[in-house]
Amino acid sequence: MQETIDSVVEKVIKGEIQLHEIDNFLEANAAMVARRLAIERLTGSSLPSIGSTILDYAEIKNRNAENVIGAVQVPLGIAGPIKVNGDYAKGDFYVPLATTEGALIASVNRGAKAVTLSGGTRVKIIFDGMTRAPVFKLDNIIDVAEFLNWVKSHYDELKRIAESTSSHGKLISIEPYVLGNNVWLRLVYETGDAMGMNMATIATEKVCEYIEDNFGKARCLAVSGNMCSDKKQSIVNSLHGRGKTVIAEALIPNNVIKTTLKSDKELIHEVNLRKNWAGGARAGTFFQYNAHFANIIAAVFLATGQDMAQVVESSSGYTWTEVRNEGLYISVTLTSLEVGTIGGGTRLPTQREALSIMGVYGSGNPPGTNAKKFAEIIASAVLAGELNLLSALANKELGKAHLKLGRAAKV
Amino acid sequence: MQETIDSVVEKVIKGEIQLHEIDNFLEANAAMVARRLAIERLTGSSLPSIGSTILDYAEIKNRNAENVIGAVQVPLGIAGPIKVNGDYAKGDFYVPLATTEGALIASVNRGAKAVTLSGGTRVKIIFDGMTRAPVFKLDNIIDVAEFLNWVKSHYDELKRIAESTSSHGKLISIEPYVLGNNVWLRLVYETGDAMGMNMATIATEKVCEYIEDNFGKARCLAVSGNMCSDKKQSIVNSLHGRGKTVIAEALIPNNVIKTTLKSDKELIHEVNLRKNWAGGARAGTFFQYNAHFANIIAAVFLATGQDMAQVVESSSGYTWTEVRNEGLYISVTLTSLEVGTIGGGTRLPTQREALSIMGVYGSGNPPGTNAKKFAEIIASAVLAGELNLLSALANKELGKAHLKLGRAAKV
Amino acid sequence: MQETIDSVVEKVIKGEIQLHEIDNFLEANAAMVARRLAIERLTGSSLPSIGSTILDYAEIKNRNAENVIGAVQVPLGIAGPIKVNGDYAKGDFYVPLATTEGALIASVNRGAKAVTLSGGTRVKIIFDGMTRAPVFKLDNIIDVAEFLNWVKSHYDELKRIAESTSSHGKLISIEPYVLGNNVWLRLVYETGDAMGMNMATIATEKVCEYIEDNFGKARCLAVSGNMCSDKKQSIVNSLHGRGKTVIAEALIPNNVIKTTLKSDKELIHEVNLRKNWAGGARAGTFFQYNAHFANIIAAVFLATGQDMAQVVESSSGYTWTEVRNEGLYISVTLTSLEVGTIGGGTRLPTQREALSIMGVYGSGNPPGTNAKKFAEIIASAVLAGELNLLSALANKELGKAHLKLGRAAKV
Amino acid sequence: MQETIDSVVEKVIKGEIQLHEIDNFLEANAAMVARRLAIERLTGSSLPSIGSTILDYAEIKNRNAENVIGAVQVPLGIAGPIKVNGDYAKGDFYVPLATTEGALIASVNRGAKAVTLSGGTRVKIIFDGMTRAPVFKLDNIIDVAEFLNWVKSHYDELKRIAESTSSHGKLISIEPYVLGNNVWLRLVYETGDAMGMNMATIATEKVCEYIEDNFGKARCLAVSGNMCSDKKQSIVNSLHGRGKTVIAEALIPNNVIKTTLKSDKELIHEVNLRKNWAGGARAGTFFQYNAHFANIIAAVFLATGQDMAQVVESSSGYTWTEVRNEGLYISVTLTSLEVGTIGGGTRLPTQREALSIMGVYGSGNPPGTNAKKFAEIIASAVLAGELNLLSALANKELGKAHLKLGRAAKV
Repeated sequence: MQETIDSVVEKVIKGEIQLHEIDNFLEANAAMVARRLAIERLTGSSLPSIGSTILDYAEIKNRNAENVIGAVQVPLGIAGPIKVNGDYAKGDFYVPLATTEGALIASVNRGAKAVTLSGGTRVKIIFDGMTRAPVFKLDNIIDVAEFLNWVKSHYDELKRIAESTSSHGKLISIEPYVLGNNVWLRLVYETGDAMGMNMATIATEKVCEYIEDNFGKARCLAVSGNMCSDKKQSIVNSLHGRGKTVIAEALIPNNVIKTTLKSDKELIHEVNLRKNWAGGARAGTFFQYNAHFANIIAAVFLATGQDMAQVVESSSGYTWTEVRNEGLYISVTLTSLEVGTIGGGTRLPTQREALSIMGVYGSGNPPGTNAKKFAEIIASAVLAGELNLLSALANKELGKAHLKLGRAAKV
Repeated sequence: MQETIDSVVEKVIKGEIQLHEIDNFLEANAAMVARRLAIERLTGSSLPSIGSTILDYAEIKNRNAENVIGAVQVPLGIAGPIKVNGDYAKGDFYVPLATTEGALIASVNRGAKAVTLSGGTRVKIIFDGMTRAPVFKLDNIIDVAEFLNWVKSHYDELKRIAESTSSHGKLISIEPYVLGNNVWLRLVYETGDAMGMNMATIATEKVCEYIEDNFGKARCLAVSGNMCSDKKQSIVNSLHGRGKTVIAEALIPNNVIKTTLKSDKELIHEVNLRKNWAGGARAGTFFQYNAHFANIIAAVFLATGQDMAQVVESSSGYTWTEVRNEGLYISVTLTSLEVGTIGGGTRLPTQREALSIMGVYGSGNPPGTNAKKFAEIIASAVLAGELNLLSALANKELGKAHLKLGRAAKV
Repeated sequence: MQETIDSVVEKVIKGEIQLHEIDNFLEANAAMVARRLAIERLTGSSLPSIGSTILDYAEIKNRNAENVIGAVQVPLGIAGPIKVNGDYAKGDFYVPLATTEGALIASVNRGAKAVTLSGGTRVKIIFDGMTRAPVFKLDNIIDVAEFLNWVKSHYDELKRIAESTSSHGKLISIEPYVLGNNVWLRLVYETGDAMGMNMATIATEKVCEYIEDNFGKARCLAVSGNMCSDKKQSIVNSLHGRGKTVIAEALIPNNVIKTTLKSDKELIHEVNLRKNWAGGARAGTFFQYNAHFANIIAAVFLATGQDMAQVVESSSGYTWTEVRNEGLYISVTLTSLEVGTIGGGTRLPTQREALSIMGVYGSGNPPGTNAKKFAEIIASAVLAGELNLLSALANKELGKAHLKLGRAAKV
Repeated sequence: MQETIDSVVEKVIKGEIQLHEIDNFLEANAAMVARRLAIERLTGSSLPSIGSTILDYAEIKNRNAENVIGAVQVPLGIAGPIKVNGDYAKGDFYVPLATTEGALIASVNRGAKAVTLSGGTRVKIIFDGMTRAPVFKLDNIIDVAEFLNWVKSHYDELKRIAESTSSHGKLISIEPYVLGNNVWLRLVYETGDAMGMNMATIATEKVCEYIEDNFGKARCLAVSGNMCSDKKQSIVNSLHGRGKTVIAEALIPNNVIKTTLKSDKELIHEVNLRKNWAGGARAGTFFQYNAHFANIIAAVFLATGQDMAQVVESSSGYTWTEVRNEGLYISVTLTSLEVGTIGGGTRLPTQREALSIMGVYGSGNPPGTNAKKFAEIIASAVLAGELNLLSALANKELGKAHLKLGRAAKV
């Protein structure tokens, strides 16, 4: 018998089939509707807005999400233009930011204006690599020592195995770490314009199999042994980088500080030292000596289809300021910015358009250049956000912003 | 002259007005359209999907976002039902998850099934409080010592001042921290069903003004001195909590481990120890001895209009396992879960509906109970996600999931 | 038969008795000689210097050390005088420093001179308490929640139990921490002039017994659950203090910087920022944003019979500098300075004399004042050491010091 | 006029000369006496014990200490024998421990007995290198990027410069780290049997000079930029090692656990997990997931003339346990053990003898082997200490030890 949306919903309500089994009975978008209707009845809720979406579930299932009932919609605003002098991003860029927190976009926007009036940011990417670090269990430390030597002497083979799983991924190093009879191999890959976590995992699984088969005395207990470290802040990421390590800097002339930021360079510097540095050290915000990297990272990531759980480590980093005669020098160091312009959520319709605003959707030519350009723009936007918030704090504007806009704080 | 969308777009292109000034010339939704058209022309991009939204910019501006050009749409799926035995959440719940990362929803879903078959989670909230910590600058440590005494002896007054700014917020403690001549006062508030950052900031600003006026020798350098710590992981949050500290536990019987998870309790426990604990200690993932809290937190936050930058600290916590005769004991401790069911992004149409699926939209009766119920459900979903991923790693399923679903890794 | 030193040595060599059993056959100091002779024969070494000691093993065994064969002798030098303006230490003090690392005493000495010429340090103790934190294992989190309430409602009883074990120790607070079904109670004690670890342990063991007997559902797995945290650096110590939290400050006038330190205030400040703060944040020296607190702490501890393993956490802390018109402001914040003037090694002959140089041997009047005076002097010496090393680095003197003195670096 | 001790003391009392100037007027040991007499009069103290020393100040000044007035004497006991199966230490060793804290030596001694009955430890050194990390200040990040490339392409030259300063030191790598416009170069040296800090500093100063002269745009602000990290715990040391990274392991058979330790393997393992791991994670003892490494490290360091301030990082590390059928597997991983058998305090009479007890005084053949042998013995003693304390905690013996011995706790 041919199932209809209604008949399938009935089956779910009666408990004859589970939510995810709906996909077996109906075409993708009909299944999405049926699942939404079932949830409405099961929970007594009404979900018309979630159902009002341009998403095509046929494109999403088996790729981006399961058990889908529709979409969440988040306001998308624009900050900029911001002038960027990078190795890949050169020119003025508009930065799409998706957020529900009032004042954030306006804040980055004012910072972008100040930066642009100052001649723009300068940006450098000093590391680029995605990591996966399986944990191996050995019987004893004699085997550990032997394993460390074996890995070193079999690097070429392991590289060949890893790279056999992808046309783009390149293994660039293996860093071993030991704790008793546990060994982690932190494999680092170049992954072109993709964020690369998937590529790295598949390649690493092959490497693990090869090791288990050929070395024999090391058992891979988990392909991710948390030294990667994915979706966590970690000092190994902070020290060695994960994704891209990007530094942006700008020199804000005295007149821009005065007229655009309405602030004072000594005071901004002092807020940076006492809040970001002394406060960070006292609170133990260990890899985040900054004011609000996470705000800008989260908003750009959401707009552009990045992995939102990677906001955690991608927002790690340091804000550094110096009072100079000619103005305020400010730099932001993002140690672990994990971004891609292909794969994952980047292919969804709105996210793809958001990337296209910055001219970074899809593969770059040569591969990897789009993701790097994107990273340079993000670092510049983060700098703009830091500059503006430090100024606002120095000026004690935060309260005024709240009273005027009646909204959540941005700090 | 009456402006039209076209005429305003022209002005922007010509540089006569800036993007944010469009709001001065057109009704809200017309302004949103005009801004999108301007961005399309300025960047040579085509943004029809971003423009296809149910959002009403008149409701959003001055509240949730500025310079809006449309919306980003993210797939929303359902995991569950998951049985929760909390003090506020009692029963079976469907959990909305918004994500672009394949396999995540399916992963939580399988964990939820295992948990529910095991009788559900038990959940306890052991702390509830939102914080704001201004940094004060004093001249010397004699003044510091005097200030510490002054604050202690003026607690009642400071509490009165703080609470004068809100009908819901209650100041529940002031924790002082010192570094040289810097003093942070970490003010802790009960904020009912709101996440409370806004409430805490406004109240704290009043307190700072009062201190500057009445104590005289302490200058408030920044209303947020980073000991809050907002949008950063920090040990002060981990030790003392921010938002809600929630613990969920479950005992998964041997037969559920075997039939639903197709795994082995000793092996799951060993993966937890060697990956989450040894790996975490070796990598320095200092407040996150877990496998992927951030995945679940990010997906629930996005679905329900929480502050996405707070995924950073809200995903801090510990996964603890024990092999017992009757099965596997597992608990997750979320130290700093910052959530609200009113305010911020919760009022947007799709987000509000997502909250309603769990029966937690809006104010609880009494106030605060909806947010607590929500927190209990989230902690349960996090437990489900941890349980499933640890099982999958133990089973070496990760590769199979990738090959089958062709998608980004979940770890 | 009466044993002689020779006969006992023979028994040891033949394996008839073990080293520690020598004490059963001979008077204390004869046993010490016999053991040394046995070790000489067993290892083919010659140990006359170790045997040349004024120590009386009868006073030491069962108190300070076991299996003793003699003593180690370490050079004891003097830095100072240093002018201290504390609440307990008022005046000029000579600071005994025991070390084998050349240049250290000279370094503190020059810093002390600069400080004294500047009018001396000002010092404040803002916390005083010794901690012990047992870890309790509970079955589940329902019991955890019940336990937390029980502890709170039984505080008076627990305080009475704890204080019944000592005439000096006072329980001043109990801080609970939870991770899953593990609960730590961090008990904080005032311990007068003693460092207090022994007192705290004995009192806490009684508390644990009482809890096991009366609450019933919490098993004390270890009287020290590492949240104390003893002989480790930890953020809980850094945040809340252990032993004494002491801050010392000084304002070094421009002319003293120039003539005594031969340096430059801007440059000293910059070295502090880039080395101690940026370097510390980049390296992850998490509770130690300083140049060499450990050098001074170790040398004073060794001279005065403190617990040398507590150098670890006692050397935690922050160096803060500010360029002011009148000179350089510098403060040191020692978060966890664990010292005593009675008990432990303080009663040994040379150590006791070293304490007497500062007028702090034995019990103060009222109790606790000697230990506080001692802590103030130490913090002042630490400030002197920091000031001098930062100046030396700024001046690039380190190399010259090495060439002149041919010795180990001090940084 | 010929000065006498008395005449010089008078000058000091009258303020005509300073303490350190005494050396200009008298032969070394007379100067030591005069200084002690002066301090006695200046402070009203009596210092006969400090004066009763075998130390020859002529050998000490300009090498180990300044302003010396005598010596501190600390009891030196013996633990062992402990059987060690290392690559350098092979056989049974007696370990000298200097301490004033009762029960410590007895504790290590019992652990050593258990280990030896179990066939001894196995030990591996997986890293050996001393570090120095100057911080360079650059104007901007363009220069930073250029500098990173310059350093890489001039490695051979820098190595030649570094090695020109010493006959033993070898530069083995340069690790660069960046934060904004700050660059640290972490130079890693092999230093033979010396701890090597002095050697590393002198070599690094030459490298800095060369860089300033030849690269031109990088100013060395401090030869130690705290990324070394010396006398501080740091994650860079924990991840990459400083001094020696040593792992020792042992498998304690069931019968030894029962008869010698009178304990239970499951319980010892549980104490390790809940105290060292959960407690460490909760407290934030970030690089020290152990019970009391610092106790053993401090006592061996003091006995053998190591740098006592390096107890801080040398006591970092992890204790790992596994319950196996045949008994308890235990390993200790010491990430940053900084030791030498030549130089520094090792040449003093008692310290030299202590080293000779283990057969490790002076240069090894080939160079470096003595220091490695020493490191293997220390790691084995640390394992013994951990094993015994975990057992004692599991057995709740701590209280009994105190009551019996009336002394300070060891945890």
